[in-house]
Amino acid sequence: MSYFTEAGSVEAVNARMGETTDARLAEVMACLVKHLHAFAKEIALTQEEWEIGIDFLTRTGRICSGERQEFILLSDVLGFSMLVDAINNRRPEGATENTVFGPFHVEGAPIREMGACISLDGKGESCLFEGRVLDLDGNPVEGATVDVWSDNADGYYDVQQPGIQPKWNNRGRFVTGPDGRYSFVGIKPVSYPIPDDGPVGQMLGQLGRHPYRPAHMHYMVTAPGYQRVVTHTFVAEDDYIADDTVFGVKETLIAPFQRVDGDTLWRSPFDFVLVPA
Amino acid sequence: MSYFTEAGSVEAVNARMGETTDARLAEVMACLVKHLHAFAKEIALTQEEWEIGIDFLTRTGRICSGERQEFILLSDVLGFSMLVDAINNRRPEGATENTVFGPFHVEGAPIREMGACISLDGKGESCLFEGRVLDLDGNPVEGATVDVWSDNADGYYDVQQPGIQPKWNNRGRFVTGPDGRYSFVGIKPVSYPIPDDGPVGQMLGQLGRHPYRPAHMHYMVTAPGYQRVVTHTFVAEDDYIADDTVFGVKETLIAPFQRVDGDTLWRSPFDFVLVPA
Repeated sequence: MSYFTEAGSVEAVNARMGETTDARLAEVMACLVKHLHAFAKEIALTQEEWEIGIDFLTRTGRICSGERQEFILLSDVLGFSMLVDAINNRRPEGATENTVFGPFHVEGAPIREMGACISLDGKGESCLFEGRVLDLDGNPVEGATVDVWSDNADGYYDVQQPGIQPKWNNRGRFVTGPDGRYSFVGIKPVSYPIPDDGPVGQMLGQLGRHPYRPAHMHYMVTAPGYQRVVTHTFVAEDDYIADDTVFGVKETLIAPFQRVDGDTLWRSPFDFVLVPA
Repeated sequence: MSYFTEAGSVEAVNARMGETTDARLAEVMACLVKHLHAFAKEIALTQEEWEIGIDFLTRTGRICSGERQEFILLSDVLGFSMLVDAINNRRPEGATENTVFGPFHVEGAPIREMGACISLDGKGESCLFEGRVLDLDGNPVEGATVDVWSDNADGYYDVQQPGIQPKWNNRGRFVTGPDGRYSFVGIKPVSYPIPDDGPVGQMLGQLGRHPYRPAHMHYMVTAPGYQRVVTHTFVAEDDYIADDTVFGVKETLIAPFQRVDGDTLWRSPFDFVLVPA
């Protein structure tokens, strides 16, 4: 039996854990308490700062709704989402790296013919995306599903503009044949801000940070017997390429975007390399 | 310019801080990011656990209202509130220790005559609370305000039962004279659970913890020229004395509760020792 002391604060809290508590839950919570207390101690958090924190969390909770997930935004802008993604998707050299899933994927996008166009609103600069799905030895992967999605030329995903953009605009699924090749026509994506009219946006402002993500095309590549890859490809020349507000950019995910066809079309080649499940 | 990597995640995030950001805010946020990332790395947080965490924070935010502050409860049961209180109220040996303020204080309680009764609902076991307000040298402090509040015999504060309990039940303020003495009649307080019908209560259940606080009398002692003391006194024999769900108990705050007057009255003596401001 020991009472709470500043020096023994972590032990005081973690000693309370029930003996029948799920072992992993107990481990995660004990670790969380240890690091939260270490934070308060190192920075000598004031009572007023604690109150500001409580108020911030409360406002962040209050703005959440079916369409808005401010805690995910918070996790994103603190690099926490990317960190969890990285921890859970360590891959060998040469394999395609993961990046954040993001909130805009929609299950069940139409399966389209190879080479089809996914841009249904006629906006933006056309771009041919093409490449191969390969295994670590460079062999083509047959039957891989390449699920793709991007914003439109105005910087919005279709689900952000129901009734304005056509359904499934800039979305589609493509299934590889024996050569492992995929190709589709979309638009050269554009950079856009994350929703910044809430507590997280205010925080970014106070930290002197902008809310923009560099232009990117989303991919989810799945194939039987292989690990799922959730990633983006990025446009190198984007103003925010070195400054993604959610830290999604990895060097290996920056893809070429080249003008072809007398400047009327862009082309972005990119190969995906999958790891066995 | 460096992209996000698992190993360099903290540096990637903290390098974004604007140059004109308030220095203390930048320091607090950088420290928070460091410890949050250290938590995720040490425990190898899974994607599913991250989702559970996001959902928990969202539900905690959703239950907050003018009358309910679930994030403060969360801070309390993780020992975080007590830690912040301890960091900000370090006092020399012999001075009365602080403990958590709690959500039930009300400004402007009636100033009552010394010795008056604060229990207005006629419930519970009467108890005489008395003692002195002293400085570190043992001299009486004149003009100290002793603001007191407790639950009633059913374990509820008056503000939790408007219309059921009389207004200002078990509350009052007492101002010391030249002898520094205070005294009032209240009830021997009883233990009670914190609100446990929300996400924090569910969490306590999963951790094998109960939601109870041991019986205590709240005090806020203020006097010109002295640091404010916000504290409780505790009943040693309480079932939860070694197991306060918000970790408020300190050894020096356990007060005697003795039967007097042929068992019809309790008496709890306690002296407060103030530190110069």
